[in-house]
Formats: sequence, structure tokens, C-alpha cells
Amino acid sequence: MELNFHLKGIFNASGNAEKAIDDIARFIEDANQGLLVRGAPEDRGAKVVDWHVSNDDISLEIRSDRYVRAHDAFIRLYNPLREILGKSYHIGLRGMQAKDYEIEVDIEGADVKKIKDLLSDVPEVKKIEIGEGLKIIFNELSEGDLRSHSVDKIIKLIQGEEKEELVYVVSKVKPGTVLYECKSRKNLSLDQDATELAEELGWVKRFPGKGQWTYLPPYAKLFRTIADVAVEEIPERLGFSEVLFPKLIPLEVMKKMRYLEGLPEGMYYVSPPKRDPKIFERFKRELAIRRDIPIDTLKEGLKDPAYVLAPAQCEPFYQFFSHEMVDMTELPIKVFDRSGFTYRWEGGAAKGLDRVNEFQRLEMVFIGTIEEVKETAQECLNAYMRVLDLMEFNWYVEVGDDPFYLEGLKEEKRDIEYPDIPKYEVRVESKGGSISVGSVNIHGTHFVQGFSIQSPSRTVWTGCVGLGLSRWVAAFLTHHGFNLKDWPPVIKERIKELPKVPKTLEWPKKR
Amino acid sequence: MELNFHLKGIFNASGNAEKAIDDIARFIEDANQGLLVRGAPEDRGAKVVDWHVSNDDISLEIRSDRYVRAHDAFIRLYNPLREILGKSYHIGLRGMQAKDYEIEVDIEGADVKKIKDLLSDVPEVKKIEIGEGLKIIFNELSEGDLRSHSVDKIIKLIQGEEKEELVYVVSKVKPGTVLYECKSRKNLSLDQDATELAEELGWVKRFPGKGQWTYLPPYAKLFRTIADVAVEEIPERLGFSEVLFPKLIPLEVMKKMRYLEGLPEGMYYVSPPKRDPKIFERFKRELAIRRDIPIDTLKEGLKDPAYVLAPAQCEPFYQFFSHEMVDMTELPIKVFDRSGFTYRWEGGAAKGLDRVNEFQRLEMVFIGTIEEVKETAQECLNAYMRVLDLMEFNWYVEVGDDPFYLEGLKEEKRDIEYPDIPKYEVRVESKGGSISVGSVNIHGTHFVQGFSIQSPSRTVWTGCVGLGLSRWVAAFLTHHGFNLKDWPPVIKERIKELPKVPKTLEWPKKR
Repeated sequence: MELNFHLKGIFNASGNAEKAIDDIARFIEDANQGLLVRGAPEDRGAKVVDWHVSNDDISLEIRSDRYVRAHDAFIRLYNPLREILGKSYHIGLRGMQAKDYEIEVDIEGADVKKIKDLLSDVPEVKKIEIGEGLKIIFNELSEGDLRSHSVDKIIKLIQGEEKEELVYVVSKVKPGTVLYECKSRKNLSLDQDATELAEELGWVKRFPGKGQWTYLPPYAKLFRTIADVAVEEIPERLGFSEVLFPKLIPLEVMKKMRYLEGLPEGMYYVSPPKRDPKIFERFKRELAIRRDIPIDTLKEGLKDPAYVLAPAQCEPFYQFFSHEMVDMTELPIKVFDRSGFTYRWEGGAAKGLDRVNEFQRLEMVFIGTIEEVKETAQECLNAYMRVLDLMEFNWYVEVGDDPFYLEGLKEEKRDIEYPDIPKYEVRVESKGGSISVGSVNIHGTHFVQGFSIQSPSRTVWTGCVGLGLSRWVAAFLTHHGFNLKDWPPVIKERIKELPKVPKTLEWPKKR
Repeated sequence: MELNFHLKGIFNASGNAEKAIDDIARFIEDANQGLLVRGAPEDRGAKVVDWHVSNDDISLEIRSDRYVRAHDAFIRLYNPLREILGKSYHIGLRGMQAKDYEIEVDIEGADVKKIKDLLSDVPEVKKIEIGEGLKIIFNELSEGDLRSHSVDKIIKLIQGEEKEELVYVVSKVKPGTVLYECKSRKNLSLDQDATELAEELGWVKRFPGKGQWTYLPPYAKLFRTIADVAVEEIPERLGFSEVLFPKLIPLEVMKKMRYLEGLPEGMYYVSPPKRDPKIFERFKRELAIRRDIPIDTLKEGLKDPAYVLAPAQCEPFYQFFSHEMVDMTELPIKVFDRSGFTYRWEGGAAKGLDRVNEFQRLEMVFIGTIEEVKETAQECLNAYMRVLDLMEFNWYVEVGDDPFYLEGLKEEKRDIEYPDIPKYEVRVESKGGSISVGSVNIHGTHFVQGFSIQSPSRTVWTGCVGLGLSRWVAAFLTHHGFNLKDWPPVIKERIKELPKVPKTLEWPKKR
């Protein structure tokens, strides 16, 4: 993608700079030969094509190619010029603005409509013209705009449109390839959806929130037992230590996860209340008087959304190491969490017991050298497959096409190392297909970089393993039904008797 | 509080009603003797003092006292009059409005300023005049306003100002009275705050969210062990069954809890995203370009707050029975939940390990006849005290002054039964005082009524027991310190060795 830049800008001097014209002329001549072409190939780079001084305004017109972008050239000139004016004339520089700035983009092969859409509500962009190329015309840019790299990010955005989904770039083995599978296939016990039967039997009851259930004693017993087996067989056997991770995650942490830019539409957002007793007094009064909840008053009483409900469960692990210098002798560090629900907003896709918005998961997460992380991931995968066999599931492991940490992200030039296979996805048979029940993920330096995790010598990687307990229970019921006597020994031995369902005169409903 | 009502209103007829004047006159004369004084003492009640018919408007002026409020009288007239007009004249009634409505309140002893403040932003109220009494002048009220009892609720609000905190009305034993205490007092092991030491030793690390921590392996091990002991000794021993309760609670459920009117300023509120890909595309672009999270765009993409993070943990239990007819032969039903974090927004009060916004709790909840609930509560309390002794805590149990379900509520006339002691609060010694570590609550019919739980014969009550595990761990460390060898046998026997702290080169910081 070829780019041409054309900038007209002003440096604001603290006094009349006309007396310095000769020195400025010499400075610009030198800069055109040196400062503004530094790092660019022969005959490329940026150039001041015109300039003049009028009282305290120093106006510059700069043209450039992609090797030294005009706004970078403009910024490059500022400090050295300030030094000259200060030393010889006691004149300071007080700021800069780009009054006019246009970028021409070679659009061969680009989707012009999409780019226009993309930029339609970016406030820095004034308009877009299409001629031989695509011309982006900017509004006046402040020093802050220039220094915060807004322009570069806009260019990156346009370039991003040409790119592939990151996961297809990263994976050396084609997503969907089956790597392992169970030795023999058993018939599924249920020939209907486990959800319906679970409701009929009173193992679960629908909760008013979308994709949420109240899980009743027989379900809870099975859940707890499967969880215990999984904990013993995977993290405890492999030397992971239990931790309790927060489940309410500040947006800034999600930004470092790059999840906020990957899947913002898939999370629940959380606002704390303001410290404003008057609003809440009013809220209480209105609530007392009216039948409906006075939602506008409530909104007045809330701060901006500041958190999400944890979607990935391992967020606090990377945050724990953020800006820390790891101690190589302590590696690998391996922990697991089973301390509560995590959440995804599934929108219309929530259904049944296996696609829920609120779910339990056993999460393992680790950090170490590249070798340690690869080895730990493989150990986890092996132990995982052993537990799948203990549960007598029909299972297979494939190369995942949606590692959670790459979801929604596009290919980019950041210097991140990815493993050959970022995600091993574990799937089990379900009525007429299969469902994902967990995964083993190797993140390379994705989170190490995002969270600025430092290491004194060798590169460190991270990895995580998720075991979707809510889905395991659903899959278990589909495979083995609701009768304790039909269940595999590893579970049956631990449950002597299933607890009673708390019935009412009208529930559970017979169908 | 004496009240006088004066209403001028109109019934809208579907045609000219002047031909029915004689029948209307007779109807009103009768109503003044019967319909409008029904239920009131001799010479009290409501009276139509003037009326006239003009084309399709039937205007009525009604005065009344508190025995039959004028707006109720107005509504009482509507249906019988409609019948007369329909039968004899084929004229329908199409609606009603109260054009002018004033209520005079005897203000002796009332805090007039407070009442004015209270009503200052109630939209139904036009103005408030103070003369001999307090006069509330309403805006025009629609049929919906009249039928939704807005006026009654406003009166209730004024009356509420004269009332005591509900808990002081309910408790037959003075809150603060100590009912039980430990037999002997041991010295606390720590002479400093457990939080500081826990940070120094790397048992916990501060998380960026207010009042949140990441709990590391030695803490998690102690937590898990205390939880296991408590679960075995209380709910499992007493025949409770485990359930998994949702932790994301719809506002409507909180309203039925009466928690939304009690403590709305103490919760986190949750919004799901809208189904609007365009907004989230824009959000992603802005996030890619800018350094800050584009929070206004995010807010555009969110629905109204629809949930809170569970503050009480037992909410789904009452919801489970809501509008169900309980089966008396199944009672008592006793369940417990330990499936995740619950939340309170402590605002500025969050501090250390014991006053946190995100905490773990073992919650037991039950429903039964009055006797069953009282007995279950006492059994729980006994088992609770046994566990406090096993933990070798310095503890006492007092009559609580803030049962969560009465918090912020005022005395009222609703027909709710409360027990003599609604809350037994369990407190243990802490550095220079005591902290609450849990409670046993009997709710009477508070939730039975709020959630419309039906019973075929005898009255049912509910109760719940909370065991604040996060606070138990903090109290445990204050009592017994950080050395496994100093811990009470019930814990020491289950923990052979404490797991390692995951250290970095710079953390935990030495002080």
C-alpha cells in the first residue's frame, strides 16, 4: 500500500521569530538533507517544501512518503528548532498544530466502501475523497493528536482491512484438524435433549435471567463430583496450586487482554453506584410510589461501566505478573481456579444447559520458558484425555479455530511470538454433533507483551487450560442419562445416593 | 395523622349524557348514603358535594376523610354508573381524570421541610402549600395514575417519615444483646493487621478493582480447608443439600427481595450489550486508534442495567418458590450454596481482607412451617457455634441490628409476620474490637409475601444462614497467625503442607 503525505503546520513561538529567519533557513536546508530522510532509502523520506515566518508563527509545508511520515517529520523538527531559537534568540516554542493534512492512499485492490465506512465516524477525519487514489483529509490536529499517534493508528486501521483473521495466520496446522480421539465409541444414553429431561426431573429450574439456571441438588451433586475428579486428575496431579481469582475485572485489564477489542459485544458490563445519597433517596421514593423500577433515576445514580464479568477466568493471572520481573528459578508457575461463575453474553444464542451465559469452569494457567509452557500444555492435554476416558465420553481433540485470546483480532506487525498450534479444542459427542467442552491454549508472548511481563533473560510464554464444567455435566447426562446405576465407576463410586429434588405441588411439571 | 381529600374529576361518556341526568342524580344520592361511606365509621367517608353533566362530560366534586379516600370514591362510582348508562341509554364510559386534587395533611409534629424535600421531585405533585395544615396539590391525574395507587403511595411515603427503622419495631429483644459466647478467651496471635502481613508474605495481592484481591496458594489452601470443615459440620451434618445458585440477579428479583428499596446504593449493577454490531465496530475502531477506552461509545452499546451482582446469595431460593404452591409434606426444604463470589459495593469503607467488595460465603437457606424454621435456625446456630469452637475463635452471638432483609426499610402496615429475633449475629474478636463473620436469620413471611409463595394450609416461613468465609480466613489469621504449626488441629490435620507463594524478583515486597 503506497502512501503520500502532505502536511501544512505551524510552530507557535513565544515571540517574533522573524529575526531568526536566516538560522531557520539554514536549519531547514540541513534537515531536508539529514533529519527528515534519516532511516529512509535513497531519495525517499520527508521534505519541507515551503515555509515562512510571520511574527510568532513558523509555518511549514511538508511532503513525504511512507518512509518518514510527514507528521513524524513535523515532530522531528520541533525540538532541534526550539534549541536553536532558545539559545540564540531567547525565543521559546509553545506548541504545534497541523492545520491541513492529507494522506493519499493507493487503493488498488482495496475495498473503498469499507474504508469509507470505517472512517466515517473517526473524529480526526474531515472527509474522504476518491480520485486516482483515496484521499483522507484531516481536521486540524493538535499537538496531542500528533503525539498520540492517532494518524498512525488510522493508517493501521485501513491496512488492517486487508488482513486475515489472526488465528489463520498463526496456526501452522489447519484449524479443524483432528489430533487425538477416543479409542471406541459408545452409544449415547439419551435420544432427546438433556435439558428437557433435566427440567422434567427437577434437576434444574429456569432462572429469570437469560441463559441462567438454578441448579438443584442432584445436578449439584453430579457437578461437584465431576469437578472433584477433574481437579484431582489434572491440576493436583500435575502440581498446580489453587488460587482464588477475582471474577469482576476492570476494563483496563480487559484492554491489556486485548479482549475488549476482540469481543466487546460478548460480555456483561458492570457499574458501581455513585456516592450520591440524594439520587438514591429519590430512587427509593420513586420505587415506593410506582410499580416499575425507575430505571432512569437508577442510571443517574451509577458511574460509568468500569468492569466486566470475567469471561476468560485467567485474567487476574496476567495482571498478577503485570510489570513484574519474573524470577526464572521460580518457573514454571502453575495455578488453578474454581472459585465461581464466569460469564459470556451469548445474546440470542443462549439455549439449554450447554450454551449458557453463566457457567462454571475449572481454569488452569501457567507461565514459564517456551519449553516449560509447551511441556505443561502437553501434560495437561494428556491428563485431560485421561479424564475424558474416565468419564467414558466420545471425544476428540482438534486444532481450535477460535482461541479466546485471538478472537476478533486481525493480523498485525507487533512483535509477538505465537506457537504453532495456539489452541487444542476438546470436543465431545452430543445429539447429532459435538460440543466444545474445553481447550488447552498456548499464548506465546501475547499476554506477556500485553501485560508488560518482564523477564531478565530468556523469553517467557503463558498458557491456560479451561475445563467447562457446566458443559461437562450436560455432556455427561447426554452420554449416561439420569440413573446413577448407569454412570461410569469413577462417578458412581463417589456418589452413594443422589439427593432429593425439592418439589412443590406444581413443580417439576410433568409433560 | 388526619387527612382531608378534595377531588374534582370527570368521567368521559361515549355520547351526550344529559338525557340521563335524572338517573345520575338518583345514583349519586344513593352512593352518598351507601357506596361512598361503606367501611367508614358513622358520619365519615366520602361524599359527592357537587356534580353536573355537560354533553359527554360528567363532572364530579368529591370531599372525603381518610376512611374512604376521594380518589377511591371516584373509582368506586365508575363501574356502577357505567352499568346504568349502558343499560338504559346505550352510553359507555371511556375513562376518567382527576382534574384537581388536593389533600390536606394535619402536620402537628411532622417535619414539614423533610416532607417538602421528599415530594419535591415526585412528578404527580404540582405544589405544596403550608397554612394551617400541609396542602398537597396534584397535577391532573390520569386513570392509570388513579388506579395504580400513586396517591396512596405518596401518602404512605409521608407517613413513613414518622416511623422507626423496621428492625427496632420487629425485634422483641434489644439489638446488641449478647445471647451466647465462647467459654474461654485465648490471646490473639497477631499484634498487627493480618492484611499487611498477608501482603508481605505473598498470600494475597491487591487487584486493581476496589476492595478486591487475588488470593494466592497458601491463602486458598486455608480458605478451602475452612470451607470444607464448615460445610461438613453445618449443612451436611444437618441434612442440607448443595445447589448452585446464579450470582447475577435480575432487578425484578431484587425488587421482590425489597433489597432494591432497602440498599440500592450498596450493589454493583450489570448491563448486557445491545445487539448492535455497528456500535461495537465503531467501539473497536476507536479503541484501536485512541489510548483511552471510548467509554461513551461503550455506553451507547449497552442496554439499561438489568441485573445486580448477588449481594445476599439466597435470592434464587425465594425466586425458585415464587408463585409456587409448596407441598407441606416436602417441608422443611434445606439447601446450601458455595458456588462463587457475592458482592457489595462498600464505597469508601472497603479495606483490608475483612471488608471487601467481592467475597466468598457459605450460604444456607430453608423454608418450612414456623416451627420447622425456628428449629432449623436453632440447629444451625448450635452447629455454627461448634465450628467456631473448632476454629478456636473468641466469639459471641448477639441480637443483630441489621438483618440484611430489613436494612433500610421502615415500619409499615403490611401484614407480615416477623419472628421475635430476626437476626442472630456472629462476631469474633479482631484487633481492638470484633467483626461480624456471619449470621442466622429468620425472615418470617417477609420473602414468602414478597415472592408470593403459596401454601395450601399452614403459614410458611423462611430462614437463612450466612457464613462469611472471606472474613473467617481473616479472623483465623488474626487469631492463629501464619504458621501451620500454630493452627488448631481441625485445620492442621487436613493441611499437611502449605503450598508455595508464586514469587517474582520484586514481589512480595519486603517492608
